[in-house]
Amino acid sequence: MLEKLKQEVYDANMRLPKLDLVTFTWGNVSGIDREKGLFVIKPSGVDYEDLKPSDMIVVNLKGEVVEGNMNPSSDTPTHTVLYNEFPEIGGIVHTHSPWAVSFAEAGIPVPALGTTHADTFYGDVPVSEALTQAEIENDYEENTGKVIVKTFKEQGVDPEAVPAVLVRQHGPFTWGATPDKAVYNAKVLEVVAEMDYHALQLTRNNSAVPQFLLDKHYYRKHGKNAYYGQNNAQSQGHAKKEVR
Amino acid sequence: MLEKLKQEVYDANMRLPKLDLVTFTWGNVSGIDREKGLFVIKPSGVDYEDLKPSDMIVVNLKGEVVEGNMNPSSDTPTHTVLYNEFPEIGGIVHTHSPWAVSFAEAGIPVPALGTTHADTFYGDVPVSEALTQAEIENDYEENTGKVIVKTFKEQGVDPEAVPAVLVRQHGPFTWGATPDKAVYNAKVLEVVAEMDYHALQLTRNNSAVPQFLLDKHYYRKHGKNAYYGQNNAQSQGHAKKEVR
Amino acid sequence: MLEKLKQEVYDANMRLPKLDLVTFTWGNVSGIDREKGLFVIKPSGVDYEDLKPSDMIVVNLKGEVVEGNMNPSSDTPTHTVLYNEFPEIGGIVHTHSPWAVSFAEAGIPVPALGTTHADTFYGDVPVSEALTQAEIENDYEENTGKVIVKTFKEQGVDPEAVPAVLVRQHGPFTWGATPDKAVYNAKVLEVVAEMDYHALQLTRNNSAVPQFLLDKHYYRKHGKNAYYGQNNAQSQGHAKKEVR
Amino acid sequence: MLEKLKQEVYDANMRLPKLDLVTFTWGNVSGIDREKGLFVIKPSGVDYEDLKPSDMIVVNLKGEVVEGNMNPSSDTPTHTVLYNEFPEIGGIVHTHSPWAVSFAEAGIPVPALGTTHADTFYGDVPVSEALTQAEIENDYEENTGKVIVKTFKEQGVDPEAVPAVLVRQHGPFTWGATPDKAVYNAKVLEVVAEMDYHALQLTRNNSAVPQFLLDKHYYRKHGKNAYYGQNNAQSQGHAKKEVR
Repeated sequence: MLEKLKQEVYDANMRLPKLDLVTFTWGNVSGIDREKGLFVIKPSGVDYEDLKPSDMIVVNLKGEVVEGNMNPSSDTPTHTVLYNEFPEIGGIVHTHSPWAVSFAEAGIPVPALGTTHADTFYGDVPVSEALTQAEIENDYEENTGKVIVKTFKEQGVDPEAVPAVLVRQHGPFTWGATPDKAVYNAKVLEVVAEMDYHALQLTRNNSAVPQFLLDKHYYRKHGKNAYYGQNNAQSQGHAKKEVR
Repeated sequence: MLEKLKQEVYDANMRLPKLDLVTFTWGNVSGIDREKGLFVIKPSGVDYEDLKPSDMIVVNLKGEVVEGNMNPSSDTPTHTVLYNEFPEIGGIVHTHSPWAVSFAEAGIPVPALGTTHADTFYGDVPVSEALTQAEIENDYEENTGKVIVKTFKEQGVDPEAVPAVLVRQHGPFTWGATPDKAVYNAKVLEVVAEMDYHALQLTRNNSAVPQFLLDKHYYRKHGKNAYYGQNNAQSQGHAKKEVR
Repeated sequence: MLEKLKQEVYDANMRLPKLDLVTFTWGNVSGIDREKGLFVIKPSGVDYEDLKPSDMIVVNLKGEVVEGNMNPSSDTPTHTVLYNEFPEIGGIVHTHSPWAVSFAEAGIPVPALGTTHADTFYGDVPVSEALTQAEIENDYEENTGKVIVKTFKEQGVDPEAVPAVLVRQHGPFTWGATPDKAVYNAKVLEVVAEMDYHALQLTRNNSAVPQFLLDKHYYRKHGKNAYYGQNNAQSQGHAKKEVR
Repeated sequence: MLEKLKQEVYDANMRLPKLDLVTFTWGNVSGIDREKGLFVIKPSGVDYEDLKPSDMIVVNLKGEVVEGNMNPSSDTPTHTVLYNEFPEIGGIVHTHSPWAVSFAEAGIPVPALGTTHADTFYGDVPVSEALTQAEIENDYEENTGKVIVKTFKEQGVDPEAVPAVLVRQHGPFTWGATPDKAVYNAKVLEVVAEMDYHALQLTRNNSAVPQFLLDKHYYRKHGKNAYYGQNNAQSQGHAKKEVR
């Protein structure tokens, strides 16, 4: 079942090591078939070189395995929460990519300091609160999803306009219209975290970009007036609708 | 038309990922035929692995597409301004290379701290002012070209002696006598930005090189008395004329 | 003799350059056959590309060469001490991997700042005291082993729960149930040292993770209640027993 | 003439890009035949991929080209001074490797902070004074050699025990008994500069290693009592004689 989506999720998982986003098996990508209400995710702890499309696990929106012989990613409950709470997303990525993790460990959002950021993220990439002891001891991965959702609600951030988060003391989750777009966003986050780290070390002054630059660059690549790329509104791994 | 220049511009574009200067499609190179008053530029948002020489777009000095089936780079109006205002340059490069972007985000020029810099750039690589809201909302890419030109005029910098700039909150543009030389300069800028970042973190003292060192190293590789390389005045991707 | 273990130790040694953990010949892996009381170690100063499984040297727990035509690693006495004092470990790795060395040079433990760390190391990776002049001048490599053991005893750290140390002014040693798991731990140490360096530069605030997060992530991958991977308690290159 | 040495110098030059020590053509290696009083050096500004053993230039100890159709490296007068003043060295390397250049730009010696350093360099790698205007304007490359020699004499450093220097505002020169050993030392310098940079950022405390650690590690690999490697006194690209 869902053979095409399994291939797509497999391909997206295999892009993670090629884009230098994972060490060992520390990453996972999932993708959802919204009509069927089922998502496909990487099995837990399998080396990328041993992975096959048929290894992908099918899970329903209650987080129950529907098909597959292996354990799904241990982060499956996090993906389940995000698919339920962010109904417009089609793919999710989790990695331990080092620059994004450094910001998560420091508890600092990845700030919008330039156009590289603004092309993909319409504002700072937020960092969640740390989970409490109770949240960690019981239903840890589900609570990880919940703290992400809470972060976006409390800070008033649109998860389509800023398709990424840092979980405090942990690392990045990104998402997108498709698994492939979620991987694209994971790479952009890593690149801008690297750039921002060095910019922040060069100057402690406030060097955040103004709102009008965010508007210009984000909508140059997104929404009905986009003019970057060959088919604009659909191009470059970004959401199609106007998010404003 | 301009098949040789298309090949040259294509080759120069393909060097960007090989030199680790671009992520995804975030870079573009153009080259001009001064006699015909036409320049050739990469199409917008096409993966480097899918790019072909015949995909290159031909544009006139009003910024109008003369030949080509795809959209030209969204930065085409910036290139148009630079070709008009800097009449001696033959090629232009734009990237989001991470070290140069970090300086652009911090709003700090890449300072001339050593001979690696002085061999190519005859002084600090300047950083432009940030664009205003009005400049961003209308004719953004054209205004990007204009703020570059303004930077060189106001700071009294010769664009042939310092063939690079950082656009504030954005990233680097470089140029040269040919597209290939502009790519060479883009790589040098990235390398010296990395060196300078670490030197600046090691010491906050003024460690700028003196003018006589700039003179020596720049003119060792440029101008009629150059003695580096095998054919001196023409060697190593630099302008031929004496810039002083 | 011990042909299977020689192959295993050879393979583990060859993973070091593939994982970017060594420059030139600056690393060594050993593995022990506990029943026979013999361990196998890389010869000293041989290029990785010239190394063969049959070059591995067999050493007894007094540190005497039992088989082999070449000199064993000059760090053999350190391995001997660790095998004698840490009876549950099956493999040992020493490298000069640059991020871990930077912490060793600075004399700072690699702090537990996030889940990437907690998945493998159940607390900070300790740094030993510097060796005294007498300890360096006589039996230097043996004393290196002794200062490691002293560090774990004095700080009350379980070497199975934290299978890594930084020797002050020198660099990292890691270990594990097998040579392969010791290499895995060497890579994790390098990755978390890189992440932690950048997190520490971003904020000097105390950003250590709480004990309950250490508990959760460590026991998600280790011990009888582990649920990461496909065969849990045995998965991912970690010790099998409950360390608490 | 000197075909074997040309091959050796060619091979050493070709290792520079493989060891990530050069960008473009920014490096050169030479090697000397002490009996004939002639040295062989890379031609100036030739791409590594185009270089052939027969392109190597033969130069005498007055710095005059004896054989070769191309211009020798523009740094040839620096090599000439070093061969004349340091009579025991057999090969010289110059690069613009980025970590070493950062220290040269900051004007800070690469300090002896750990065993990685002590294995090769018996003390801090010194940084020269900046050249004066007169020294730069006339006989610049010869004066570069002279300021290196002056640095070692004034600071009382033995160029065999510390086979490397940073020329202020410029970059590293290293040397050794052979061209290959000089390349080895160039790589070690780059690696320890990277480690030291990060250690210095982690702590501004004095973390220099004590003299007895320098003694132990340096003489573990050098001199008549060396015991690292398979043939000790001759191993690992270091001078054979006891330097103390």
